[in-house]
Amino acid sequence: MGMAHYKVILAYDGSGFAGFQRQLNQRTVQGDVEAALRKIGWQDSSILAAGRTDAGVHATGQVISFKLDWQHSVEDLRNAMNYQLPPEIAARQVMQAPEGFHPRFDAISRRYRYHLFCDQVRNPLQETYAWRIWPPVDLDQMNRAAASLMGVHDFKAFGRPMTQDGSTIRELFSARWQLSDDDVYLDIRANAFLYHMVRRIVLALVRIGQATVPVGLISESLESGELPLSGLAPAEGLVLEEVYY
Amino acid sequence: MGMAHYKVILAYDGSGFAGFQRQLNQRTVQGDVEAALRKIGWQDSSILAAGRTDAGVHATGQVISFKLDWQHSVEDLRNAMNYQLPPEIAARQVMQAPEGFHPRFDAISRRYRYHLFCDQVRNPLQETYAWRIWPPVDLDQMNRAAASLMGVHDFKAFGRPMTQDGSTIRELFSARWQLSDDDVYLDIRANAFLYHMVRRIVLALVRIGQATVPVGLISESLESGELPLSGLAPAEGLVLEEVYY
Repeated sequence: MGMAHYKVILAYDGSGFAGFQRQLNQRTVQGDVEAALRKIGWQDSSILAAGRTDAGVHATGQVISFKLDWQHSVEDLRNAMNYQLPPEIAARQVMQAPEGFHPRFDAISRRYRYHLFCDQVRNPLQETYAWRIWPPVDLDQMNRAAASLMGVHDFKAFGRPMTQDGSTIRELFSARWQLSDDDVYLDIRANAFLYHMVRRIVLALVRIGQATVPVGLISESLESGELPLSGLAPAEGLVLEEVYY
Repeated sequence: MGMAHYKVILAYDGSGFAGFQRQLNQRTVQGDVEAALRKIGWQDSSILAAGRTDAGVHATGQVISFKLDWQHSVEDLRNAMNYQLPPEIAARQVMQAPEGFHPRFDAISRRYRYHLFCDQVRNPLQETYAWRIWPPVDLDQMNRAAASLMGVHDFKAFGRPMTQDGSTIRELFSARWQLSDDDVYLDIRANAFLYHMVRRIVLALVRIGQATVPVGLISESLESGELPLSGLAPAEGLVLEEVYY
């Protein structure tokens, strides 16, 4: 097939990484993926990605792209990548992409999931991929507050843009907490997210759900542009699940 | 309250441990628990436990007991233990136990859960606590085969006793595969289990579910006393969930 563009859906356990983006002397997802690709003949300086997840944040649907001279099928490329990647990272799907495809600029929206669980006592098997909170939360109150985030807003109270002087206006398409067995999770989808935006929203919603702050905190912050609460919900509860094109 | 006996329900992520039982120069659950207890005044040579889980096997309901001179409430003891224990181990419940309580000899049955998931491609977030298999399994066939294990049998084909010349006769009370979202799991309960018994049973049932061995393999092994298949289902899918008294 010769030189072609490829789009790959990546899953990773972010626990052991200093985030997605390559950094000197740090283990990053991008660094490990590029090292794996070099072993199968990739020679460029950088892959492209849909989003830069923070240190400790996971993904089941990160999207990357790169150019590669590959003579075999996309299934063979997926298998070759998985053979070279460490156990914490997997190429879930590989497909050819049109020449000009850009995983970040072409994305029309992103969906993250945030997992909570309510328990007074430490719980090692559950805490690996979720934030343990106590006291328990009122999901109805959290969903009422989350509804005020829907639509187009200036989200500057909830995070900063990736580039200096970038816009802080975003459109939120959905934000809903659900309960499944012990697992409480938020699915949140927007055209794009500011840096730390999901984790700041989750922290505010959890404190609303625990009734330690007023239910109007979210809409007040949207109006005033002021940070609702200092701090962030922990990284280990957050998963980049899907990027839509 | 002075010197008293305590029963503690432990949860742990077994990934980083060489099993429950203390071993020289290895990180074990027992070793870490005893080190934590020493910091709060425990002075004996060994705690007692309901069962010795293998390297990599997890627990949400391991039971241990020990004697301790503790002046505060059982909730304070739980909190003090959790403060001293590493993040991979938690004291979930602490209660006083009668003087002669023995977590292994007094147990009337144990329940383990084994998690599978069916996927052709690696999947890091799911693989931490489950065995990835492909092709997918036929749960009805697996449950039909599992039913032949029920009741009192000589299980020598499925494992060896903890002590040499110990009995290999056990009574199985339940063994049933269930499906919940992507998660396929076996709940299996017996008066006691032989060494490696659950993981040998799971391997045989999975191969039956994949139709790579005949559905009668389990009952034939029970009759002949011969190992159904060499090998074991991986440790990371197995959790000791409950010990019944």
